[in-house]
Amino acid sequence: MSAGWFRRRFLPGEPLPAPRPPGPRASPVPYRRPRFLRGSSSSPGAADASRRPDSRPVRSPARGRTLPWNAGYAEIINAEKSEFNEDQAACGKLCIRRCEFGAEEEWLTLCPEEVSSYPAAPWWVRGQLGKSGHYWALFDGHGGPAAAILAANTLHSCLRRQLEAVVEGLVATQPPMHLNGRCICPSDPQFVEEKGIRAEDLVIGALESAFQECDEVIGRELEASGQVGGCTALVAVSLQGKLYVANAGDSRAILVRRDEIRPLSFEFTPETERQRIQQLAFVYPELLAGEFTRLEFPRRLKGDDLGQKVLFRDHHMSGWSYKRVEKSDLKYPLIHGQGRQARLLGTLAVSRGLGDHQLRVLDTNIQLKPFLLSVPQVTVLDVGQLELQEDDVVVMATDGLWDVLSNEQVAWLVRSFLPGNQEDPHRFLKLAQMLIHSTQGKEDSPTEEGQVSYDDVSVFVIPLHSQGQESSGH
Amino acid sequence: MSAGWFRRRFLPGEPLPAPRPPGPRASPVPYRRPRFLRGSSSSPGAADASRRPDSRPVRSPARGRTLPWNAGYAEIINAEKSEFNEDQAACGKLCIRRCEFGAEEEWLTLCPEEVSSYPAAPWWVRGQLGKSGHYWALFDGHGGPAAAILAANTLHSCLRRQLEAVVEGLVATQPPMHLNGRCICPSDPQFVEEKGIRAEDLVIGALESAFQECDEVIGRELEASGQVGGCTALVAVSLQGKLYVANAGDSRAILVRRDEIRPLSFEFTPETERQRIQQLAFVYPELLAGEFTRLEFPRRLKGDDLGQKVLFRDHHMSGWSYKRVEKSDLKYPLIHGQGRQARLLGTLAVSRGLGDHQLRVLDTNIQLKPFLLSVPQVTVLDVGQLELQEDDVVVMATDGLWDVLSNEQVAWLVRSFLPGNQEDPHRFLKLAQMLIHSTQGKEDSPTEEGQVSYDDVSVFVIPLHSQGQESSGH
Repeated sequence: MSAGWFRRRFLPGEPLPAPRPPGPRASPVPYRRPRFLRGSSSSPGAADASRRPDSRPVRSPARGRTLPWNAGYAEIINAEKSEFNEDQAACGKLCIRRCEFGAEEEWLTLCPEEVSSYPAAPWWVRGQLGKSGHYWALFDGHGGPAAAILAANTLHSCLRRQLEAVVEGLVATQPPMHLNGRCICPSDPQFVEEKGIRAEDLVIGALESAFQECDEVIGRELEASGQVGGCTALVAVSLQGKLYVANAGDSRAILVRRDEIRPLSFEFTPETERQRIQQLAFVYPELLAGEFTRLEFPRRLKGDDLGQKVLFRDHHMSGWSYKRVEKSDLKYPLIHGQGRQARLLGTLAVSRGLGDHQLRVLDTNIQLKPFLLSVPQVTVLDVGQLELQEDDVVVMATDGLWDVLSNEQVAWLVRSFLPGNQEDPHRFLKLAQMLIHSTQGKEDSPTEEGQVSYDDVSVFVIPLHSQGQESSGH
Repeated sequence: MSAGWFRRRFLPGEPLPAPRPPGPRASPVPYRRPRFLRGSSSSPGAADASRRPDSRPVRSPARGRTLPWNAGYAEIINAEKSEFNEDQAACGKLCIRRCEFGAEEEWLTLCPEEVSSYPAAPWWVRGQLGKSGHYWALFDGHGGPAAAILAANTLHSCLRRQLEAVVEGLVATQPPMHLNGRCICPSDPQFVEEKGIRAEDLVIGALESAFQECDEVIGRELEASGQVGGCTALVAVSLQGKLYVANAGDSRAILVRRDEIRPLSFEFTPETERQRIQQLAFVYPELLAGEFTRLEFPRRLKGDDLGQKVLFRDHHMSGWSYKRVEKSDLKYPLIHGQGRQARLLGTLAVSRGLGDHQLRVLDTNIQLKPFLLSVPQVTVLDVGQLELQEDDVVVMATDGLWDVLSNEQVAWLVRSFLPGNQEDPHRFLKLAQMLIHSTQGKEDSPTEEGQVSYDDVSVFVIPLHSQGQESSGH
């Protein structure tokens, strides 16, 4: 994604501002230099911040970094907005084990080294509790790569902690009212049944809490290191035969099958969350410090509009009406611009994500964080219920892809490429590469009028069928 | 709909509490005794509060009141919870005329007397601007019928005012940035185009504003007369070839065609709006006065649960998690109960509607109004784009119907009845009657296990096809 006045291009080789030592107001959490994803094909892996020693950051090549992770094929391109890619990715095996009392078991490991030991069964079958699941994540940074890097190194650990905390509920046939399984009221199971609470609701809750926890970690770490920035987050998790897609920001995941295109996420931007954002400014007008107007108009108003009746929308309206323009309506709008150009407080193009705790409107003290949510929306794909075909895939990508390719165009590329390349062990990787290259204005690109993406672009292609797994060349 | 402690049954003939004269805190708006809908088949019509002199209230018969309105067929049954039906309906022709400068034209009339002068064209063709549209409304009262009666007498006038205010925008090809059509910026039309603002957005805005205005009128009138109560509101408006359905509460409208069942509204209850309501209590904890807990649990907690980890949800969660029970969690939950039994603050079964300005939790000073929205959600059915069949209808009904009949069961009844009765000029009325009777536990009822509705029930059947209009016997 892109953020208004963050669009500074760092020249190749130009160093990022050095992290400042923690100041007197810094958090007591010690600063850990963020580790970068190692991107070469010979060393796939996502760092587990809580377990593995720090490694030297490896600068990602400017273009065409290839991350052939296990059970998912990533292609990432850096638009050179900064020396380090503002897009970051993480991916790995996800093992959750039930912890017996007193036993010191690992709860969750992201252990790409174990790829070669994978059994032949497809990941969604193996993704049973006590066996392995998978985790894929894309983070699109703004204001520098710091938040995206922290998120790539941290979020899976937060998710592990949150899943650990409810694992007794996950392994039960039905989540018990009390985590220890003790029944205080004889009809407790009936209450849980009536509320329709299933194990998948605990995973959704864990993802929601993990995003919030990660946001707090990023806030502390950035403050401690004197860095700034934020990022979007799109996460897919396979567990117990289901694929959970959690999204906070403007990345997107879709399911592509022979006869179906199904969105698995929805974008959160100042436009899609207009009413929530206006509502907050209505409840807390002091957040705008008298500098912005809460109301939406088709364009920014000027002196000539004073006294006229113009189109407007307020927080309670999904339709439009007319109002007589007063002087206060001439202020800069809380949400302004259209489509890709829409900005929250003239600054940010997304309304959910991680980080941005210090972000203020340029030359003011107006904070953006109160308007941002770190909570994702989670959708659940019951993979076990699908009659999977060999070429069924999930495509996850940052907005750099979706700005120039529609869901239909991506599906067309998937369906054009995969059936003719079923023997190629690298076909999913090549598909991810092709999707990226289709955003670069090549002649054979399916984009309208050869549209080109000038943004960072990251793509995961996740095969759903076991055949995809077997032919992946591992 | 029903409201927890409002479920007092008034005995037939027992008078309602007499309205008190306005006290010192009464609104300056003079109290007008509400007029009741005249329900006999010989005098169909909806009163226009702003134009017609008050008429003596006519008590609705306890059961089986028949309202064969023009272009819509209503059947209303009173569950005798009060002497007057808590369900109220309004329906009529809707004429909007463009007011030329200086001309004293009527802008909108609800004029059922003109039914016989209807041309043969279907209502949705005639519903062009400058010609007539239609208005149907169902109001389901709680705490007495006062709010529902006021809404039935008032809302269409509010809608008229709101549509009047934007009529210049409605008649333009595209709503102009400035209501007077003057172009201050040469690219103003382009700004409006880019925002995708169409005439239908002005109708949606007018409906949203009309509901709010009506809510304010009800608040003033009830306060002035010392009465209390609230109501849900479900409104359908035909205009310019489209059907707008605005809903605030738990009534429902569906489109039934030969091969399609399409919901045209969505219910607003403490369950469906849980996150919005919890969010408000999070922002303004003082609204709960220390008496309620914002959190949701599968059941109300008690002393034995203290210190245990139990399932819970907070405002930011769509999933569930576990928390350790503290003393404050033992308070009564902000939203409690399940399905039909779910209550906001232990009191109210809906989260949107009109009125309830004085409603407080029993024996406390805790107000419900801050948690209620009067804003409807509006859906638009582009009738002109449908290839209409003769038996395509819209069914609007209060929750008394939907509590015992599913959308599919209603559609089954529609499809079973209409094709065999195409010659019957009263078939839509009979269908409405049959739908009502199906909620009364008759042997041939399609409801599961002979379910019976003990609530008031009101049904509109609106034929969409011109044939339905022609065969209606007018």
